[in-house]
Amino acid sequence: MTAAPLLTAAPDTIAAAARRVMARCDELARVSADAASIERVYLSPEHARVNRLAAEWMRELGMRTWQDAAGNRVGRIGDAAAPALMIGSHLDTVLDAGRYDGIAGVLMALEVVRLLRVPTADGDGWTVPLPFAIEVVAFSDEEGTRFGRALLGSSAVAGTWNDAWWTLMDADGVSLRQAFLEFGLDPARVGEAARRPDELVGYLEAHIEQGPELDRAGEALAVVSSIASARRFQLVVEGEARHAGGTPYDMRRDALLGASEAALAVERICSAEHHIVGTVGRFEAFPGAVNVIPGEVKFSLDLRGEFDGERDRVWDALARELDDIMGRRGLRWRSREVHSAPAVFCAPLLQDVVAGGIRATLPPRSEAPPVIFSRAGHDGMSLGAVTDVGMLFLRNPEGISHHPDESVAAGDVAHGIRALAEAVLLRGTERV
Amino acid sequence: MTAAPLLTAAPDTIAAAARRVMARCDELARVSADAASIERVYLSPEHARVNRLAAEWMRELGMRTWQDAAGNRVGRIGDAAAPALMIGSHLDTVLDAGRYDGIAGVLMALEVVRLLRVPTADGDGWTVPLPFAIEVVAFSDEEGTRFGRALLGSSAVAGTWNDAWWTLMDADGVSLRQAFLEFGLDPARVGEAARRPDELVGYLEAHIEQGPELDRAGEALAVVSSIASARRFQLVVEGEARHAGGTPYDMRRDALLGASEAALAVERICSAEHHIVGTVGRFEAFPGAVNVIPGEVKFSLDLRGEFDGERDRVWDALARELDDIMGRRGLRWRSREVHSAPAVFCAPLLQDVVAGGIRATLPPRSEAPPVIFSRAGHDGMSLGAVTDVGMLFLRNPEGISHHPDESVAAGDVAHGIRALAEAVLLRGTERV
Repeated sequence: MTAAPLLTAAPDTIAAAARRVMARCDELARVSADAASIERVYLSPEHARVNRLAAEWMRELGMRTWQDAAGNRVGRIGDAAAPALMIGSHLDTVLDAGRYDGIAGVLMALEVVRLLRVPTADGDGWTVPLPFAIEVVAFSDEEGTRFGRALLGSSAVAGTWNDAWWTLMDADGVSLRQAFLEFGLDPARVGEAARRPDELVGYLEAHIEQGPELDRAGEALAVVSSIASARRFQLVVEGEARHAGGTPYDMRRDALLGASEAALAVERICSAEHHIVGTVGRFEAFPGAVNVIPGEVKFSLDLRGEFDGERDRVWDALARELDDIMGRRGLRWRSREVHSAPAVFCAPLLQDVVAGGIRATLPPRSEAPPVIFSRAGHDGMSLGAVTDVGMLFLRNPEGISHHPDESVAAGDVAHGIRALAEAVLLRGTERV
Repeated sequence: MTAAPLLTAAPDTIAAAARRVMARCDELARVSADAASIERVYLSPEHARVNRLAAEWMRELGMRTWQDAAGNRVGRIGDAAAPALMIGSHLDTVLDAGRYDGIAGVLMALEVVRLLRVPTADGDGWTVPLPFAIEVVAFSDEEGTRFGRALLGSSAVAGTWNDAWWTLMDADGVSLRQAFLEFGLDPARVGEAARRPDELVGYLEAHIEQGPELDRAGEALAVVSSIASARRFQLVVEGEARHAGGTPYDMRRDALLGASEAALAVERICSAEHHIVGTVGRFEAFPGAVNVIPGEVKFSLDLRGEFDGERDRVWDALARELDDIMGRRGLRWRSREVHSAPAVFCAPLLQDVVAGGIRATLPPRSEAPPVIFSRAGHDGMSLGAVTDVGMLFLRNPEGISHHPDESVAAGDVAHGIRALAEAVLLRGTERV
């Protein structure tokens, strides 16, 4: 594999591209359901607004653009009959989010198109001098913030949409089906978003690491080897709501104390494993009055690991521990799995082009670029069902993500844009 | 002290009174902010509706009635110039409440008036043949459900209203001051609700036990010796919200895990003491997303004990434990005390008249009536600042309270009405 640059763009051009990505991240951050924080969830008015902005930016590059049947915004450039290399990430956010997670990857993909595009032969438009078209995709739901089920947008594209999801409810009791209708989408047509394997040559995504490894190692970019497997559960602990003053300890069946023990058991059992993390992120106690013993607690569990088997073994151990805790306290518990994704391994070919892109971008190094696995989930987990997946990680200072302090350095974004463009060119030359 | 009945009412009359109390408890249960449960908080439309119903029932008995400057509904019968024996309880509820807590006491007080009233000399109205007037008070806020601070209604009557409370906020960000205005009350005039000691001869209250002791002992009624001291705190644990997948355990500062340990520490430390109960009833995790480590948790602590010193010693031990837990986890914590009430001891004279009322009501027994202390708070805790307090407890099956399954037997209500009427007569004869 060569490390000689294929891209001829001047450093100033790349720096300007990176500044545009940073400025657009700021612009998108202002599209929020909450004035004091960033909150942009699936099928919301904010989702519609950022899709319109993305469409404008795609058109400005000479791309043909459409919103697909699941609310993803797609832009395409190049031969209309050729298969496409898809490059993308997502524009939805968690609650009280940062401004780069997903978003930076979409905007970097647009800058790659800007760097690679050339006028069409007739001078009427733009194309790419590659043996495939490029499609930039802004996925509509990666985080699962609204309906508790992640990767809805990319699942539609991958053709793995599940009709059982239509009855998922948001916090206001709005079903996914109803939200589709209110957004102007037709639930009966969601299948039209699905792509066939022969329409695609692969999927590439640039993303901030959402972890501290590159920052700790002093590296700007890394090749992603795989995306962690993840399972998500909604758990309910049931006890009995009773008067806080009048009920002695021997008559209490306090759901909050059972759920507190459960949260600590998640930490204890997962942290004893090497590559497993488990997180209780949502936790609600009912009825939630100062002078009433909680009779019910609902909480979420997010479980991730490099390997499916290890992750499943941990869940089994947790379930046994919950039986024990709740039995001891006279409580009942139940769980519902709301998301399950196997570990997705990046395609060797695309790992190679991403590595080649990094080598062509950063100063010569004796070692190969860092290769890490992603504990965070990404749209590529869905795309793996329909095409090859490759990912480029950018350094994320202190690993702070899903938080307003989430950051990425403009210089690293510039490196990332160049590396991603090089990777696309390498994929085109098939010199890898 | 005599045990010979003073009340001449026939058993059928008392049974009819008890049936009316049960039916009115059902009627008030339908006045709720929530169609599926009982929820009636301070200064709400439901508060106004039950006050109107209570006013109607007071007028029907020939009582003069008014809503005081803090939204309490008062009815008075007897000599306009005489001091009053106040009998009452509250009409507000917790969330997802039962239908008897407080409410039964107000309705029983009205039945006592019905049993004791006699036509006035001129035949134009009704009075009571006692050396004092009777005032029935339906307190407007005992539970503190809406503003997190209990006993607001009775504090106004006791003259212990604190202007610091005006800025207390409900869950929708409405201040107590604003809620007063919206209810049609003038915050500047709340002092007018306060009563002077010379206007009152005492305060009597009948209430379900909200605990299992009478049920376990097979007793219908008890004399209350004292009302537990209580302190309530709002606690905040601060960590850092971060990505659930990307953040390894050694970089997490998970506020939920710290707060979970805190809730378990409350149970451990309180249950090691004889007469202390501590309850975490509210517990909210932020930002509350499935894939974000909670950066902040807010929770409530309700701490009760028979003696103030024991209760305060337990709080000090808890605070040291919280320092330890949060220090170990890299978290910060803070607390704000939102309610503090010292233990209130019932007046010996009123304990005696309540005991006399029970002895006159129930079959002869070799022992004195049961005497128990109340772990639950009551309006009498406030009234203790301005007059003597006495309380009668009714058996509460299985001690279930603050829960839709809360119950009381109609037969026990009949015993309670008779015992309360006897107690009032005894107080009038001053034969005790």
